[in-house]
Amino acid sequence: MAGAVKEKDNEMTAVQSIAQLVRSGLSPKVINERLDDYHANDIADALDILQPNERAILYRLMDVDSLSDVMEYSDDADKYLEEMNPRKASDILAHMEPDTAVDLLKNTDSRSKVVWLELMDEVHRNNIQRLASYDEDTIASRMTTNFVTLSSSLSIKEAMSSLVRQAEDHDNISQLYVVDEKGIYYGEIDLKELILARQDEKLEDIVVTEYPYVYADERIEDCLEKLKDYSEESIPVLSDENRILGVITSQDVVEVVDDEMGDDYAKLAGLTAEEDLREPLKESVHKRLPWLVLLLVLGLFVSSVVGLFETVVATLPMIMSFQSMILDMSGNVGTQSLAVTIRVLMDEKLTGKDKLHLVLKEMRCGLVNGMILGALAFVGVGIFIILFKHYTPAHGFAISGCIGISLMVAMLISSAVGTVIPLFFKQIGVDPAVASGPLITTVTDLVGVVTYYGLAWLLLIETIHVA
Amino acid sequence: MAGAVKEKDNEMTAVQSIAQLVRSGLSPKVINERLDDYHANDIADALDILQPNERAILYRLMDVDSLSDVMEYSDDADKYLEEMNPRKASDILAHMEPDTAVDLLKNTDSRSKVVWLELMDEVHRNNIQRLASYDEDTIASRMTTNFVTLSSSLSIKEAMSSLVRQAEDHDNISQLYVVDEKGIYYGEIDLKELILARQDEKLEDIVVTEYPYVYADERIEDCLEKLKDYSEESIPVLSDENRILGVITSQDVVEVVDDEMGDDYAKLAGLTAEEDLREPLKESVHKRLPWLVLLLVLGLFVSSVVGLFETVVATLPMIMSFQSMILDMSGNVGTQSLAVTIRVLMDEKLTGKDKLHLVLKEMRCGLVNGMILGALAFVGVGIFIILFKHYTPAHGFAISGCIGISLMVAMLISSAVGTVIPLFFKQIGVDPAVASGPLITTVTDLVGVVTYYGLAWLLLIETIHVA
Repeated sequence: MAGAVKEKDNEMTAVQSIAQLVRSGLSPKVINERLDDYHANDIADALDILQPNERAILYRLMDVDSLSDVMEYSDDADKYLEEMNPRKASDILAHMEPDTAVDLLKNTDSRSKVVWLELMDEVHRNNIQRLASYDEDTIASRMTTNFVTLSSSLSIKEAMSSLVRQAEDHDNISQLYVVDEKGIYYGEIDLKELILARQDEKLEDIVVTEYPYVYADERIEDCLEKLKDYSEESIPVLSDENRILGVITSQDVVEVVDDEMGDDYAKLAGLTAEEDLREPLKESVHKRLPWLVLLLVLGLFVSSVVGLFETVVATLPMIMSFQSMILDMSGNVGTQSLAVTIRVLMDEKLTGKDKLHLVLKEMRCGLVNGMILGALAFVGVGIFIILFKHYTPAHGFAISGCIGISLMVAMLISSAVGTVIPLFFKQIGVDPAVASGPLITTVTDLVGVVTYYGLAWLLLIETIHVA
Repeated sequence: MAGAVKEKDNEMTAVQSIAQLVRSGLSPKVINERLDDYHANDIADALDILQPNERAILYRLMDVDSLSDVMEYSDDADKYLEEMNPRKASDILAHMEPDTAVDLLKNTDSRSKVVWLELMDEVHRNNIQRLASYDEDTIASRMTTNFVTLSSSLSIKEAMSSLVRQAEDHDNISQLYVVDEKGIYYGEIDLKELILARQDEKLEDIVVTEYPYVYADERIEDCLEKLKDYSEESIPVLSDENRILGVITSQDVVEVVDDEMGDDYAKLAGLTAEEDLREPLKESVHKRLPWLVLLLVLGLFVSSVVGLFETVVATLPMIMSFQSMILDMSGNVGTQSLAVTIRVLMDEKLTGKDKLHLVLKEMRCGLVNGMILGALAFVGVGIFIILFKHYTPAHGFAISGCIGISLMVAMLISSAVGTVIPLFFKQIGVDPAVASGPLITTVTDLVGVVTYYGLAWLLLIETIHVA
């Protein structure tokens, strides 16, 4: 904990002392020299607490390279670019990591973006426009074009100087990609191997041809597990003609994992997408309402089924008080199975056998938990009813027996439903994280209600005549 | 999609053709040469489909370096090491990334692990034991000791040759860490900068001193956001004396993000930790049962409160059928607020003002959704009751009015509860993802039940005399 406290203090000071420095009135040269001591991420955070006129000082002081670094880290980069003159903004955009620049342009409402793109030189503009053209759910939309290629015919020495030339413009140099004379992707070289190679070796000798790669049009969710599995610092993205278009760095993978899991997390709770702190009310309502309306309609349907048991409740009102417990429990079990299934679907490619195995495992788990909880409920609720509701022991345990059996049956079926429904949606190509929730809630409610009141009617009213 | 299909085929073949190769009966030299064409991750997957005697061929063929690579990628590395002779297994462990080796040793039941450690040379053993000694929730438990340090007094040329010497044993060379003559951490150099530096520059000129770092004893959840924010390829981990102990690579960050989010995801569904496909039944039951038992007890409590309204239900049995709908809706709204709050808590450091803002936003969102759904329910349920249950329009809409108002009130309060409870648990240092679920379910159930039956009693039975 000591470390954490230290660290937090440091961080507060970095951002605040940058702000102080800008407000200090020192000469531009001195401010600029001292700014060199701070990380771009901290300068980006400092922009948020500065006034527009203070930010203008920074825009004038810093060169395009440093500013583009800062903008890569800022969440409000579009706002800040808007404050600069359009030519500088355009220059900065051109110097940013192309995928970050594309993100920025896609997510801004700024009308200036057309101007920024028009002022940009053709190479950078084409690059950005090509990246922007990829579908958001393909892996190509996450790649960066900042990478180094070497021709396979080079000698070690030539490769090294080709690298030094390209390194001026490209940051990702720990993996180098080798292409043949036609530009077809051939393999990968770790920078480390190039450095350690003897001068008389050929580039071919150190090329790794079994290095993993993905195709540009693969869907993110289909290749995410592979990117995680191979855990390389960067993985090349190829066109259908096997030319290298870009690379996915492990920082990109961090982002993708965070986004994909964040979305699944949100969906499990019935939100259509992830939300954050500063989101406008209208958007939040919009993200939550669809699921809620659907649930209301389904809930109405469940209620009409419950209504069929009105006479049971009228005869024996006490049993109604345990309905909430049974429905809550079967809903919880269904959600547990759903969460496990969605994570398994995300992590692995399942064969038919795996799926059957998963369903059976979930059902066994539901049955075991159901038997344990059913037994607990039988004893606990029985004693409770006898003591506080003054039923005879026989009637008391008959009622709690109904509850225990219903719990067990409802939990068994809910765990099957919680597994089969997402598997089914995955099979027919519907996102299981979104679609499963409402259906599972409805089905488990129905199962719980029918089992409970049906059993109560059969056993308690028709057979034992408790009421 | 075409790309995805291509790729999937490729992947199938890689693993299967490795298995074929091993079974081919070719000479060891030929097999070994051809194995060079495959990625360690694919060889690891191939081990799973080979028989023990076939795996033995591989163990004999491959050298320790390649085998340790393969073991880093395998999920069953402990099983495979157990199959080898202990000295080879120990050698392989020593050559693995230290953090991966520690993970393997921590997660295996194998009795051989003591032997493996005993057979290991002292340097590697000490390294592993030191890494293993860190608490699992501190960032130090995720670091690797595979990194390169340079002394700040070196010239550019000396630094380059020191790097080449160290690179033989260390993979992570894209970031180099600089320490002063006392071994205190001084700053970072990108390998790229070292390569591009002129021979007459001093190392000091290219050291980046504003580079981010973390302390070994920081908790993972406290510094995760920082690791993501700075998005560097590796970040140094310092001791309390500011000596560099190891580094967190961005692959480590991928793992940490995946684990932390996976855990939160599981907890949201009431599992105590993440599960996977091949987990034994006993463990799955164990992970789910605690929450379920707690919920059963809390459910019993809710039921006893519902029991207080027995006379209301006995007088007007029909209203009982809509209980499930109101409880489901308030539970859903509470879960939505919980999910948003936990993600916000994970992503950002909140001030008191932020927290108030979040609670108010969630309540406004709950109120708006509640009003919309309440209105829908008022109209929809009213028509339903009048048509199918044959109530007069006045009585029908009185009943559905009760339902609509209860929905609105329950949703408003549930969204407040779903936000305040996790904030409260976070404040008192309890994991909000684990603790919040059961409490929120219980509170929203109680709010729903009391509002609904209370209102029904007051309005329908005491005032309008519907029954």
